Amino acid sequence: MYSYEELYRIFADHLKKQHFSNDPKELYEPVIYAVSQCGKRIRPVLTLMACDLFGGDIKKALPQSLAIELLHNFTLIHDDLMDQSPIRHGKETVFKKWSSNMAILAGDALFVMAYDYAVQADPAVLPEVMKVFNKTALQACEGQQMDLNFEKRKDVTLFDYLEMIRLKTAVLFGASLKVGGLIAGATKKNIDLLYDFGLNMGMGFQLQDDLLDLYGNQDVFGKRTGQDILDNKKTFLFTKAMTMADPDTRDLLLDYFHEKQLPEEEKIQSLRRIFDRLNIEKLTNDTICSYLNKGIEKLEMIDMPDERKLPLKNLARTITAREK
Amino acid sequence: MYSYEELYRIFADHLKKQHFSNDPKELYEPVIYAVSQCGKRIRPVLTLMACDLFGGDIKKALPQSLAIELLHNFTLIHDDLMDQSPIRHGKETVFKKWSSNMAILAGDALFVMAYDYAVQADPAVLPEVMKVFNKTALQACEGQQMDLNFEKRKDVTLFDYLEMIRLKTAVLFGASLKVGGLIAGATKKNIDLLYDFGLNMGMGFQLQDDLLDLYGNQDVFGKRTGQDILDNKKTFLFTKAMTMADPDTRDLLLDYFHEKQLPEEEKIQSLRRIFDRLNIEKLTNDTICSYLNKGIEKLEMIDMPDERKLPLKNLARTITAREK
Repeated sequence: MYSYEELYRIFADHLKKQHFSNDPKELYEPVIYAVSQCGKRIRPVLTLMACDLFGGDIKKALPQSLAIELLHNFTLIHDDLMDQSPIRHGKETVFKKWSSNMAILAGDALFVMAYDYAVQADPAVLPEVMKVFNKTALQACEGQQMDLNFEKRKDVTLFDYLEMIRLKTAVLFGASLKVGGLIAGATKKNIDLLYDFGLNMGMGFQLQDDLLDLYGNQDVFGKRTGQDILDNKKTFLFTKAMTMADPDTRDLLLDYFHEKQLPEEEKIQSLRRIFDRLNIEKLTNDTICSYLNKGIEKLEMIDMPDERKLPLKNLARTITAREK
Repeated sequence: MYSYEELYRIFADHLKKQHFSNDPKELYEPVIYAVSQCGKRIRPVLTLMACDLFGGDIKKALPQSLAIELLHNFTLIHDDLMDQSPIRHGKETVFKKWSSNMAILAGDALFVMAYDYAVQADPAVLPEVMKVFNKTALQACEGQQMDLNFEKRKDVTLFDYLEMIRLKTAVLFGASLKVGGLIAGATKKNIDLLYDFGLNMGMGFQLQDDLLDLYGNQDVFGKRTGQDILDNKKTFLFTKAMTMADPDTRDLLLDYFHEKQLPEEEKIQSLRRIFDRLNIEKLTNDTICSYLNKGIEKLEMIDMPDERKLPLKNLARTITAREK
């Protein structure tokens, strides 16, 4: 059994050893730049952890863990362009550093490169592995489309929001684990349970992200507090508040939301006061807890010794209670 | 054996029968719009023709022919956005009709959908089929990058240009045939010969495109004559002319090329006069002929009865001598 930290190191070392093409260099420079950004690498490590959980040879899961990470990077590059987000992991995003065209093309190339690693799976499980990749990638597109739609919609419900993050974020957590399980040759029943565990952990992960954006410690979180409010993002906090609020407060929330004259700090504080009055921080934490518990319940149903599940259980607890 | 026309019809009927998802509709509307444009469908039909050449069951190649067509459509959507081309097949392109974001996301979705058809290949040939798709898709990205680079470069040689169209256009012709051959269970030697046939046909196809742009009959070709010149595209005609010209004429060509004041028709006619003086129309036709002959030579080396190769031979002759 490996710890999260060991698998993180193994993945990082393996990534460093990859020789990506550099011709034409204009194409591969942004590709390599994007892949080299120090994200948390949670998703590829999940693939290795899943393989390890079932006693599989993690070396065999390394190509798929790379595929998962490149697929994730592809979505980030295109999403950052569509959302016009200038900064990620404290550095300029690809479209900002190069151009929109480079972000489109480098993203496309990463997508293909991801599949190039994915197809290295054993032929016996390849069709199943490819199905997971295709389904997850298409769901990511659908989730991003919902997210884009939300920008224009005034009637986004909590239900809509949860469906959007399920597609845009959570399914990739599930898929990362599922692929690792497939490589290890786990049973369908165990793999399905593991997928559900990942899905719930992914939901918790995203809600924690929403929470940290407003209630996090700016110095630790590394991003400006309240950025989602300034970006008019319909997050869990906002859609939950809309659910909890009386009609007058709902109107107030919507007014603030479309307010363009107010100084930034005032807008953040005004919305925060409403959120506080509606107890949104606690309600969000409760929902995160509920996803975490639902996930761990699934993990516990997997037909493997409890001690083998510990690293995943700890990881789920850590990332749903993280401060950055 | 099927004729080209029969396979075109079979493919078109099969495409019509596909039920693409329509949720979220904002994502799938442009996807369906792009796929429904009446292109020539040469590439998917090539897949079916290759399968038929080797006596394979063309029904088994239908998913891959769809995959090839969707992959092609994906590259068109993203390329049109990057090139800011407003019109394709006489209709507005996706980015023009919807938005840049929709072109990015619909393209991404098409890409995944292409792979979703590709993985339906028999598990015995799936790894090989996937390798062809990945390699070809990455080459398409590299070719597009070279094309984007050419816009800024003043020193594009004939050699550079031929390499760019090999990656951007010709390899997909080869790949379309290769996949069909793989599905039919042809030998590696035969498949490699068929790929080379396709590659050469693809080169001829693109050069014919370059030629028609300036020397085609506008009413038949359906596009404005000389558009490539107005778009300052470094086509075969231009790079060939640069190779043939004396230093003074080369300077003149470059001057015209970067000329922004001249009325459009005057610019086209001025460059055309230089091309005519350098005999570019005939030289281009000679090069097309040479690719066609090289391709047919490869086709003839395939270890199958001559009469089975006739539809492909006729197609190669038709598309390298086409008027639209």
